[in-house]
Amino acid sequence: MDPVLVEVTRGGRVESAHRGAAIVVDAAGKVVFEAGAVDLAIFSRSAVKALLALPMVETGAAARLGLTDAEIALACSSHSGEEDHVATATSMLAKAGRDVATLECGTHWPSYDAAARALAAAGKLPSALHNNCSGKHSGFICLACDRGHDPTGYVKPDHPTMKMVTAALADMTSTVLDARNIAVDGCSIPTFAIPLRALALAFARFGSGQGMSADRAAAARRIRTAVAAQPRMVAGTNRFDTSVIAALGERAFVKGGAEGVHCGTIPELGLGFAVKCDDGAGRAADVVTAALIARLLPNNGAPDPVVAGLAQRTLTNWNGIDVGTMRPAGPLVAGVPGADRLT
Amino acid sequence: MDPVLVEVTRGGRVESAHRGAAIVVDAAGKVVFEAGAVDLAIFSRSAVKALLALPMVETGAAARLGLTDAEIALACSSHSGEEDHVATATSMLAKAGRDVATLECGTHWPSYDAAARALAAAGKLPSALHNNCSGKHSGFICLACDRGHDPTGYVKPDHPTMKMVTAALADMTSTVLDARNIAVDGCSIPTFAIPLRALALAFARFGSGQGMSADRAAAARRIRTAVAAQPRMVAGTNRFDTSVIAALGERAFVKGGAEGVHCGTIPELGLGFAVKCDDGAGRAADVVTAALIARLLPNNGAPDPVVAGLAQRTLTNWNGIDVGTMRPAGPLVAGVPGADRLT
Repeated sequence: MDPVLVEVTRGGRVESAHRGAAIVVDAAGKVVFEAGAVDLAIFSRSAVKALLALPMVETGAAARLGLTDAEIALACSSHSGEEDHVATATSMLAKAGRDVATLECGTHWPSYDAAARALAAAGKLPSALHNNCSGKHSGFICLACDRGHDPTGYVKPDHPTMKMVTAALADMTSTVLDARNIAVDGCSIPTFAIPLRALALAFARFGSGQGMSADRAAAARRIRTAVAAQPRMVAGTNRFDTSVIAALGERAFVKGGAEGVHCGTIPELGLGFAVKCDDGAGRAADVVTAALIARLLPNNGAPDPVVAGLAQRTLTNWNGIDVGTMRPAGPLVAGVPGADRLT
Repeated sequence: MDPVLVEVTRGGRVESAHRGAAIVVDAAGKVVFEAGAVDLAIFSRSAVKALLALPMVETGAAARLGLTDAEIALACSSHSGEEDHVATATSMLAKAGRDVATLECGTHWPSYDAAARALAAAGKLPSALHNNCSGKHSGFICLACDRGHDPTGYVKPDHPTMKMVTAALADMTSTVLDARNIAVDGCSIPTFAIPLRALALAFARFGSGQGMSADRAAAARRIRTAVAAQPRMVAGTNRFDTSVIAALGERAFVKGGAEGVHCGTIPELGLGFAVKCDDGAGRAADVVTAALIARLLPNNGAPDPVVAGLAQRTLTNWNGIDVGTMRPAGPLVAGVPGADRLT
């Protein structure tokens, strides 16, 4: 039974609570923090997009196509469908000699409500470019075109481009990825069930460059610096991942995925982490992630104020009245140095 | 520890799971179904709006002001801010001699995305009429004006109108409501922590007319028939409560609230129910509610197809590909006649 990691209070009572598992390890697999069923395989969803972008960079495709920091960051993103996201995806596709018609991610309205309303107010409809995964898909198309693959069907597990992407994920997580742990993600690419421990290990490697070839270590560094330089590209306005990376720069990489998954790395400590909320709640995965970073990465002895504010938030209602809090709980605040600063 | 009541699957694996508590009782308190911590007090939120509307009807205010079925139904609603909802709230306020300026619920964009985009496309901004609680608040204002109360500050616990509303909730739930269990709701009115068992009892009374005065029983019947006649008014397009009531008419009343709460009644069986998902997930409370109704209210030996479809849903991605299911689990499907039809 996974412990309660996040509590939502109202009027001084716990109104809702989120259970989950979380683990922090170094690149040798040494555990720094552990709570819940960290050896259970969970679908990694969009939390591993940075790992899926490795082949595009390590093969030299990104350099040959002249991809910018913003474009590389968008390849790792679950973006909000804002104008700059759409323009960046369009530019990536153009560099591959392609356009929106090659995208196989499906179409939805921008997830940022104000962007959706602005699109509607301009009398426009969304395209696949607005899909939160269009940057990742544009990256796959860049890789395919650079490799000389026909990108058609690139979302399928047996497409040569997707095979390269899946091989990178398997290598980074030291996990066998096959028919036994595959499923279909929201944007139609494969997603795999992988233990949290293996995901955290992969991100410790991603942050430290250990346990991989020199080319891959350089690619991981290139991706981390690109995201740190363009934090808006990895998510968007008022989004958790953008806020954390904008505050910490290259000191932390964090990436959420659907159904309450979060992964990331703290490169200067050589640590990677992975979080899964049992109930799939993204709001809780955000709090767990912020609480872990606030504890692990003190800034002159205190947590970064932006990160501490994301770890414990005051909830206000439509009239701006304080009605409660969202806060870390259980093993996140018990008996660990610095945890008391969060509560 | 509450049991898992709902599972979300992907590729044949359980990706996420929701724990919670649920109870079904008759107006004498006899338990028909029970799972989890049903004696724990939980914030009832918007799930009790129909009970909060009782004073407006039982005092004769609704009749004197000539409120229609649509207006009475909107008084019980968490609506989606669609044009007909806004028009109906406007009409309620006009009958009380008031307008939007008297509303104290705060403003937000319509929760139905297409309505928000249509408003933006028309170059308009939302008002307090678009707040999902504007119908409930308009009902409070109707009651206040009919009683001769100055409606100013009607959201406060000590306002004479709110005292009448709170007294009705206390009577219906046989619960003491005071400073020990009060908090502030999203729309600024008080919300109270009440045990699920007491909430289910209140709705068994609401559906059966038992345990209350003749005037209140008539008011409860009036509210139920109004909602059954105007199911769009209680929620909106593609919303769970509207779908269930549109399918079943007066055979069931259901109402959701924030943070995974659902209450309702099956009048012909004299039963009331209350559901709370521990993690606050509305998607799970919907599934639990539909699963309970499908089991309790068979239609010629089989569950109503609309309700059965809401109890167990196929999940599709942005390309329309089936990726998984959302389904009832644990005590909702174990050892109860008819439960096998849901799985």
